[in-house]
Amino acid sequence: MYITVEKPKDLFKKCFDFTLADEVKAQGVYPFFHPIDENEGPVVSFGGRKLVMAGSNNYLGLTSNPKVKEASINAIKKYGTSCSGSRYMTGTVNLHLELERQLADFFEKESCLLFSTGYQTGQGIIPTLVQRGEYLVSDRDNHASLVAAAIMAQGAGAKLVRFNHNNMDDLERVLQNIPDNAPRLIVVDGVFSVSGEIVELPRLVELAKQYGARIVIDDAHAVGVIGKGGRGTASEFNLVDDVDLIMGTFSKTFGSLGGYVVGEEKVIDYIKHNASSLIFSASPTPASVAAVLVSLQIIRDQPELMTRLVENTDYVRQGLLKAGFRLMPSRTAIVTVLISDQMKTLLFWKKLFDAGVYVNAFIRPGVMPGHEALRTSFMATHEKEHLDKVITEFCTIGKELGVI
Amino acid sequence: MYITVEKPKDLFKKCFDFTLADEVKAQGVYPFFHPIDENEGPVVSFGGRKLVMAGSNNYLGLTSNPKVKEASINAIKKYGTSCSGSRYMTGTVNLHLELERQLADFFEKESCLLFSTGYQTGQGIIPTLVQRGEYLVSDRDNHASLVAAAIMAQGAGAKLVRFNHNNMDDLERVLQNIPDNAPRLIVVDGVFSVSGEIVELPRLVELAKQYGARIVIDDAHAVGVIGKGGRGTASEFNLVDDVDLIMGTFSKTFGSLGGYVVGEEKVIDYIKHNASSLIFSASPTPASVAAVLVSLQIIRDQPELMTRLVENTDYVRQGLLKAGFRLMPSRTAIVTVLISDQMKTLLFWKKLFDAGVYVNAFIRPGVMPGHEALRTSFMATHEKEHLDKVITEFCTIGKELGVI
Repeated sequence: MYITVEKPKDLFKKCFDFTLADEVKAQGVYPFFHPIDENEGPVVSFGGRKLVMAGSNNYLGLTSNPKVKEASINAIKKYGTSCSGSRYMTGTVNLHLELERQLADFFEKESCLLFSTGYQTGQGIIPTLVQRGEYLVSDRDNHASLVAAAIMAQGAGAKLVRFNHNNMDDLERVLQNIPDNAPRLIVVDGVFSVSGEIVELPRLVELAKQYGARIVIDDAHAVGVIGKGGRGTASEFNLVDDVDLIMGTFSKTFGSLGGYVVGEEKVIDYIKHNASSLIFSASPTPASVAAVLVSLQIIRDQPELMTRLVENTDYVRQGLLKAGFRLMPSRTAIVTVLISDQMKTLLFWKKLFDAGVYVNAFIRPGVMPGHEALRTSFMATHEKEHLDKVITEFCTIGKELGVI
Repeated sequence: MYITVEKPKDLFKKCFDFTLADEVKAQGVYPFFHPIDENEGPVVSFGGRKLVMAGSNNYLGLTSNPKVKEASINAIKKYGTSCSGSRYMTGTVNLHLELERQLADFFEKESCLLFSTGYQTGQGIIPTLVQRGEYLVSDRDNHASLVAAAIMAQGAGAKLVRFNHNNMDDLERVLQNIPDNAPRLIVVDGVFSVSGEIVELPRLVELAKQYGARIVIDDAHAVGVIGKGGRGTASEFNLVDDVDLIMGTFSKTFGSLGGYVVGEEKVIDYIKHNASSLIFSASPTPASVAAVLVSLQIIRDQPELMTRLVENTDYVRQGLLKAGFRLMPSRTAIVTVLISDQMKTLLFWKKLFDAGVYVNAFIRPGVMPGHEALRTSFMATHEKEHLDKVITEFCTIGKELGVI
């Protein structure tokens, strides 16, 4: 008698079989991980060549603002380059508490908690609050960081249900199907990151009340863009008191790195003492926190920056629409041009890059077939000549490739 | 006929019911989130009062090193306060690529990939590599960030199996119970974060070979502490080629914030193009990356810092052992004193704090009942007077509380 023992398959086989990136590179149209060697905000340099940056989240141009840089430098001088520990243990400095106070005040909520990245913020909230047998109700187009947080909650025993993107009828259907007495949290992007579309918040708030759900909004792409004085989606709809938790990031409007959540004190306190991604992760650096403190002051003091951002984006949006491009629905700082073909998207990206315009290529498997697109986003600090350059090159290449 | 519809329970009930933190605060022994107002490394200031810091991960004292600070400041001047995007899209600057090259070289692996936090690094590796139906084999005492990554992989359909802490017989039992042909990844801390204990790597490597498993080691607390020139656990055992992936953090020895993984080029390339926590998270700031570049040079140039760190830690370890304290097994930079009682641990922490020594309190529910402890860790830059102060205060309070 012989027993045949099968050898385990190699876990790394998927890595050795992965050829997509190499193929795209071989075709000379690889759009990812290109290093910037100088960054002036609206204009950046790749390999010594200057390009108009039309793909950054640096909405108000604050990463190169002299006051923001100075505050960041002074924080390094005073506190050093790292806190070497989590907020929980040895990683809290005065700056963290000051920023938490100021953000709670700005967003008109009781309390605030910082995280080391925006990506970790959803993880600090969702798996901590939505526990075994409880329900997480998630928009199908939520940002990847919320998807990761949802999968983590699911791995720990929470129930994950999804509704069709920004479709409030489908949300109602999903809420109706949850067992009557089960606690539930609705999580949505305030402004969806791929398209720039705004969530249908008034109806969502009504449904949450009707079906006894709590709400968390990720305002990563909303703060500094929409709402009163840039206060984001809930403020835009005058529904700040009806949204339980508002989270966001520092790597967009705030010109830094990190994330935050604001809400009721008891809820924030619970997250603070139970969230793995807070307790077991080194705190945001003093340099990053100091940058946000000054950025927040600039947002308060210079609302004209947000007006400028909206005007700049509208200018490009109208230009591209008039030229015949198909755009995803948006009135925020994101303008996404549908190309709906993988190779054409990559070619378009490369031709824009060569012509001096940097945008982001969204291709499969990151997007569904047919949704391949070029995503652009703008800054308050773009000059008209930059925006004209973007429109002109889009039109020239669009015609060349038969997109318009 | 009446239909009774139960109202949903409130998701936030758990928050309103959470009283542990308030109770500990009311007793005056709350050991968490205390803000530091000045940080000189071995000595820090809380509310204007100077304490010996015996709980930081700033092992080589590099966060306040003038060269590290200067590099960080220069990076802000040149690149600004943020990259405003992920490595994938607009968030790569030359510094990221330079650090990846240098770390791959330092750890003698083909390739390296940076992450924005150490916490996110495990998530970039584990759920990306261990997919539906594949097996993750995890030590029960792995760091919380690896636990989070494991739960995320599980939520996406991977199989999670655990073995008893650092118990290689139990690891073998677990490996034997995995279906013969299933791909599998063993994940372990190189140096366990609670105790400072080193993983039994030689036997683990043998078992991995015998049972066809790949290995990833988290060397957060090992780099700059053990191994040739501080190269960590695999180097310590001369097994660098046998460990597939080595990951670590920048918020400990490297005096910064972020994480990294080194390994074979094809594997790193796969992670680079598929890991959510990389692709959808803003990149490490130029300031943080520049700090690591200089820290790495200091680690290469000044091996005497690591000798000093080991000597400093041993000095305290021997002092506390001689006094009769029960320590968890460790020969790294962590010395964990078992108290085995919740209230006594908190009281001991508070008395040390008042006496001018800062340590970390590990209490329930963070640790199992009976494992309540005070965890200390040391720096190359501690002077003998600091270490004597730690030993003296431990002994005085230990007698007072009947611990020794």
